[in-house]
Amino acid sequence: MTRRGRPGYDLESLLAVAVKLFNERGYEATSMEELSRKLGITKSAIYYHVASKDELLRLAVDRALDGLFAVAAEAKNRDGAAIDRLEFLVRGSIKVLVERLPFVTLLLRVRGNTKVERAALTRRREFDLLVTELVEQAEAEGDVRTDIDPSVTARLLFGTVNSLIEWYRPRGGLGDGELADAVCAITFDGLRTR
Amino acid sequence: MTRRGRPGYDLESLLAVAVKLFNERGYEATSMEELSRKLGITKSAIYYHVASKDELLRLAVDRALDGLFAVAAEAKNRDGAAIDRLEFLVRGSIKVLVERLPFVTLLLRVRGNTKVERAALTRRREFDLLVTELVEQAEAEGDVRTDIDPSVTARLLFGTVNSLIEWYRPRGGLGDGELADAVCAITFDGLRTR
Repeated sequence: MTRRGRPGYDLESLLAVAVKLFNERGYEATSMEELSRKLGITKSAIYYHVASKDELLRLAVDRALDGLFAVAAEAKNRDGAAIDRLEFLVRGSIKVLVERLPFVTLLLRVRGNTKVERAALTRRREFDLLVTELVEQAEAEGDVRTDIDPSVTARLLFGTVNSLIEWYRPRGGLGDGELADAVCAITFDGLRTR
Repeated sequence: MTRRGRPGYDLESLLAVAVKLFNERGYEATSMEELSRKLGITKSAIYYHVASKDELLRLAVDRALDGLFAVAAEAKNRDGAAIDRLEFLVRGSIKVLVERLPFVTLLLRVRGNTKVERAALTRRREFDLLVTELVEQAEAEGDVRTDIDPSVTARLLFGTVNSLIEWYRPRGGLGDGELADAVCAITFDGLRTR
């Protein structure tokens, strides 16, 4: 076989272009035809790397989920008060979001129309449960307000984190540390002056 | 002309079905063909009500935007401290989100691929500016923390509000008042016990 049709694309760079296109146009609305035009290579050159559009999606959302679950495992297993481990999880998740922004963006827009999408939604629910457990522990330790259902608190907290994909752009803006400081200040301590 | 092909659909019920489909499948990925199959009427029966798919989108996102801007105008013009008017805006926006959930969901997923989408994004930015102005006023009045850029505070606040579309379902869950209480408790006062 010749290498014609695969000028300079490895799986990594192909995935980056695909994810950008999925985010701009929507996963469902993007065809392999369009992707091959965007890349300037043939469809069979794409199929040299992946079996299907679905596999591209799976690789992309796993990139986001693996990062988030690595942080969650560390938050769960480290020593310290639950509220500190919760803050560790928020900060670590923001770091993953900033470093893997296109992948996390795609993950958070998955709707559940295919098997790959449903698997991603299942893993997202597992993640939410881990957050809820940490909130419950922090409540039991007296550090988190108990007037709100822990699953609602968990959802609002990560709702704030996840909303960053809508406006945060790494270049020229806040760094991931400053961004995490702002999120933690507002969600843990509130925007109202004391 | 006969009335064949329009069994029981007025613009309102047609719009409701269209918006549900757009939210499930993505606006770009949904064709008028699919919509007509879903409705069980012909495409020309749809075109009796609207000129294009774009017009359906415009009607839908305006339903959300008009609600949000009505609350914003009231928040801007009423008497009282800026922080109270900010809370009024958050609560009112949550009420609009709950009452017009499919429309607000569609609005928040608009990406800017068409003229209608770009117009919606422009109105969303105007709304964000109104929120930022209220945050700045509340800072000047000493009621909101000044260690975070007001536009970041505004984005985090409405990021939390907007994230409700991802999990909130009116039936069997919290009412819009309880939901607003939870959001305001966490964003204004924080989840940490004092």
